Amino acid sequence: MRLAMIGLGRMGGNMARRLRRGGIEVVGYNRSREVVDALAAEEGLIAADSPEDAVSRLAAPRLVWLMLPAGAVTESHLERLYPLLAAGDVIIDGGNANYHDSQRRGARLAEQGIHFVDAGTSGGVWGLDNGYCLMVGGEAAAIELLTPALQVLAPAPDRGWAHVGPVGAGHFTKMVHNGIEYGMMQALAEGLALLKGKTEFDLDLAQIGELWRHGSVVRSWLLDLTAEALQQDQDLADIAPVVADSGEGRWTAVEAIDQGVALPVISLALAMRFASQDETGYANRLLAMMRNAFGGHAVEKS
Amino acid sequence: MRLAMIGLGRMGGNMARRLRRGGIEVVGYNRSREVVDALAAEEGLIAADSPEDAVSRLAAPRLVWLMLPAGAVTESHLERLYPLLAAGDVIIDGGNANYHDSQRRGARLAEQGIHFVDAGTSGGVWGLDNGYCLMVGGEAAAIELLTPALQVLAPAPDRGWAHVGPVGAGHFTKMVHNGIEYGMMQALAEGLALLKGKTEFDLDLAQIGELWRHGSVVRSWLLDLTAEALQQDQDLADIAPVVADSGEGRWTAVEAIDQGVALPVISLALAMRFASQDETGYANRLLAMMRNAFGGHAVEKS
Amino acid sequence: MRLAMIGLGRMGGNMARRLRRGGIEVVGYNRSREVVDALAAEEGLIAADSPEDAVSRLAAPRLVWLMLPAGAVTESHLERLYPLLAAGDVIIDGGNANYHDSQRRGARLAEQGIHFVDAGTSGGVWGLDNGYCLMVGGEAAAIELLTPALQVLAPAPDRGWAHVGPVGAGHFTKMVHNGIEYGMMQALAEGLALLKGKTEFDLDLAQIGELWRHGSVVRSWLLDLTAEALQQDQDLADIAPVVADSGEGRWTAVEAIDQGVALPVISLALAMRFASQDETGYANRLLAMMRNAFGGHAVEKS
Amino acid sequence: MRLAMIGLGRMGGNMARRLRRGGIEVVGYNRSREVVDALAAEEGLIAADSPEDAVSRLAAPRLVWLMLPAGAVTESHLERLYPLLAAGDVIIDGGNANYHDSQRRGARLAEQGIHFVDAGTSGGVWGLDNGYCLMVGGEAAAIELLTPALQVLAPAPDRGWAHVGPVGAGHFTKMVHNGIEYGMMQALAEGLALLKGKTEFDLDLAQIGELWRHGSVVRSWLLDLTAEALQQDQDLADIAPVVADSGEGRWTAVEAIDQGVALPVISLALAMRFASQDETGYANRLLAMMRNAFGGHAVEKS
Repeated sequence: MRLAMIGLGRMGGNMARRLRRGGIEVVGYNRSREVVDALAAEEGLIAADSPEDAVSRLAAPRLVWLMLPAGAVTESHLERLYPLLAAGDVIIDGGNANYHDSQRRGARLAEQGIHFVDAGTSGGVWGLDNGYCLMVGGEAAAIELLTPALQVLAPAPDRGWAHVGPVGAGHFTKMVHNGIEYGMMQALAEGLALLKGKTEFDLDLAQIGELWRHGSVVRSWLLDLTAEALQQDQDLADIAPVVADSGEGRWTAVEAIDQGVALPVISLALAMRFASQDETGYANRLLAMMRNAFGGHAVEKS
Repeated sequence: MRLAMIGLGRMGGNMARRLRRGGIEVVGYNRSREVVDALAAEEGLIAADSPEDAVSRLAAPRLVWLMLPAGAVTESHLERLYPLLAAGDVIIDGGNANYHDSQRRGARLAEQGIHFVDAGTSGGVWGLDNGYCLMVGGEAAAIELLTPALQVLAPAPDRGWAHVGPVGAGHFTKMVHNGIEYGMMQALAEGLALLKGKTEFDLDLAQIGELWRHGSVVRSWLLDLTAEALQQDQDLADIAPVVADSGEGRWTAVEAIDQGVALPVISLALAMRFASQDETGYANRLLAMMRNAFGGHAVEKS
Repeated sequence: MRLAMIGLGRMGGNMARRLRRGGIEVVGYNRSREVVDALAAEEGLIAADSPEDAVSRLAAPRLVWLMLPAGAVTESHLERLYPLLAAGDVIIDGGNANYHDSQRRGARLAEQGIHFVDAGTSGGVWGLDNGYCLMVGGEAAAIELLTPALQVLAPAPDRGWAHVGPVGAGHFTKMVHNGIEYGMMQALAEGLALLKGKTEFDLDLAQIGELWRHGSVVRSWLLDLTAEALQQDQDLADIAPVVADSGEGRWTAVEAIDQGVALPVISLALAMRFASQDETGYANRLLAMMRNAFGGHAVEKS
Repeated sequence: MRLAMIGLGRMGGNMARRLRRGGIEVVGYNRSREVVDALAAEEGLIAADSPEDAVSRLAAPRLVWLMLPAGAVTESHLERLYPLLAAGDVIIDGGNANYHDSQRRGARLAEQGIHFVDAGTSGGVWGLDNGYCLMVGGEAAAIELLTPALQVLAPAPDRGWAHVGPVGAGHFTKMVHNGIEYGMMQALAEGLALLKGKTEFDLDLAQIGELWRHGSVVRSWLLDLTAEALQQDQDLADIAPVVADSGEGRWTAVEAIDQGVALPVISLALAMRFASQDETGYANRLLAMMRNAFGGHAVEKS
């Protein structure tokens, strides 16, 4: 089996590696050529100079897997690929696209008989060794063509990947996964901060993190990683208290509003990230001002 | 009618003034003597050197009103007053005591036949001119003795004060009032911050604050004060984004937990104040660390 | 001055009345003719059979004010009006449109030289007597033409209406106003529920609501209305515990996500409304199931 | 090694079993005798008729482990045990006590030279097979005496148990663990409800739950259990949407308020449980009433 991987960054590069190690032929293209050459040398990747070159090295039905930043970059590559493909070919978007975009793209390609598969992919930098969790949307026929690759990418051939629904359902499921992740992370961080705040007990967070990994109700992969990081450093003085957010957390919160479904904790976890990013503190300045205005409470001068 | 006012700070001093202007005789005591002398000179307050002196200038049934910081200061003054009073006398606590404390104090005094009245008082620095909102708990007989003073302190004799229930009910009602205040303030601040963030419209927050005061659904005293403050300054660059909290917001949130009643927005408004006070940012550092651990996302160095 | 009012429902009908009583000539159209006839008889409204008829009764520059449900109804009426208008005319949308729609409509009309004004309108059923709060976006020239009408609709000629910014800014400001309203309402409801839950004090919520209206920090129009309603009935046994939401609360929460601004309390107030509407209770069933799965905790059978 | 286990319910009974299977001699007492007899027959437990009898079957230093409901039941058993014990003996409370109670009890026993150990215990009904996570507070000397039992109870001798700090630190750590659990559960339930709400994709939640167990960021023990339960039933029509809460979630939220630490998501997860338990819907009735009062919006009749 052979497929083309377009985008060999942190995710795409490791996925190409894992595919190669699983015996899949991979044609690889990346904006910066060094990555391609390295993978060609190390893993036997078939190097391509351009998306066009990558496609030309495939036989019908051609399988083209994109691992690119969602939004404009993915869109422009898709525009470039459309004229190169024909009925029966399959484009897989493994990036973090908004599922509405995937539905739109799938409908457009369907007019030409090209299959679109949205493969929400989780696993981060650990996926190379542990395998990726793949939430796949699209037509059964297309996914059948991909199955050998999915079996290699997943933690095991029979688990960690699934065909969850029609086009869009893969990215939708991945989006919700990330929303849950926001809430779980926030809960874990809050609890650890409460432990840290209890100075009278002088708790060792690295010890407790490790302890909870075994037999507790909160044992989880996020805890595994957290416990390991706390072993190195539990003061975190070098890390700024600013939490970035990605599209998927935002989309989850918007989806809840669109559905009219209450997602209080996930939405709040997102808002707390926004608060962490806020350099102006304007709402808090307003509140301090109001307290002063009605109660004569002193305000701290900044 | 004559009463003693113990504590002539921002609240007690203005209340003594308002009582005097309403024709009530006020014996006043304050830790720092200058305040007493000034009120004696300006308003005809009867100066007292000590709580004991203040009580000695009253005739039975003696009415002693405390306007002191809740907690240890109020407790120590009460301990000092107990032996000076007799059955039929009335102690009024107009401070922001926890209602459990008021219940405990009331029960203790009741054993000696002394009345305890908890008079939750709202109005801040504006109460002198506008009158105070008084939420009064205690026995009807005691409150009847106080009525002339309550009628003067309130915005009008027949409104802005009420006997809401037994001892403790006054401070309880004031506590919940403050909890609502936290939520309203936070909602207002969030909305104004969203207006501010919409830079493409270059909105004038002072104009909008003033506008909303007339005919809108959100018109309120908090908005009145906010609009006025925004007229002076809408950048608030001199005000630190740190929002203090008082006992009553915390007690409201704890009461909800004790009752098992959901107070999501009020509790969250309190948590946002805590977040504004947090100099460590530990929870956010943890979150940034976790993102790095699983996704290889770069962390901002602090 | 003469304008046409398209849509004479709860809002539009009362606005037409207020305009008439302020001496403005109003041509009125409504889907159901009875409303038009009644207003013609009572207030001297100039009846129109159709939007076309309404426009034909105006002289250039024609002022056409829409008070219609946002979304499809407003859109279809706008489509019908476009060909009837010419450069220099003004369409005012006083409904609760999404500001993005207003920006789109304004841009389209601007190509033909037609002015678009978005007039966010607050005041509900009380606006007829109290006046409306009008947050107006658009070009100064267009708003100048409207000024006599705005002065009549507002609580007073010089307050309660303002030109807040370009097209879209009016509906944007109204949207945020409603977001604040959600948070304030939720805070008030939570606090009152906590009073109600304190059965040992047997509090009279009607009394406390009325009390807080005078001198307290939480005094507000929402409290005025709540206190009045509680006078009639404080058990509310006849009212279902289901809180509807309108577009503007949702849009406010989505705007916050788009801006990346934290709106924790307003967003949560919206989520609590969604929770009140949820007939499935699915998230809660899942939680009960999980507790059973890990702890053997009994689940309540439904 | 021999210890007494007082309380052989769901937790204590299984812990006695696991201790026996690990070669520890266990003297067991339970209010209802059948449980004692069954464990004696099945596992070789040494049956005791009363706490006094249990203590009498131990040699100094005596180790008495309580697995009882926190609060009054634990308190009354402790009162009964105090006079039976002597300096050097160890009482272990493995229940879910409030850490303030444990500190108080520890201080009292310390006066008599009796050791108090608070052993927060997680693992639920799965602990028998998987081992328990034990968060232990107290003096090192006492914990050393217990170590063989802790090694058997934990998932492995060298992990899943730890001496985390002085008396109180064990129950404190367990309390925070449960707070995190509340947040994680809520996040997971919200996400699954959002999947369920997306009817257009007709997602199979059992499939997705199982899928996420492998390679995803949200993989966790809570997900393992949830996925397994969803295999049996994903409609959950038989489970009432009512989520009980235990002391520890409440205490975590109160601790945050005492510390002045923001715990927004954990506190909100608790509030959502309260909301699920609320049969009155009073806050929501108030909100529906307010909407009617200001906007004339129809209320649903209940």
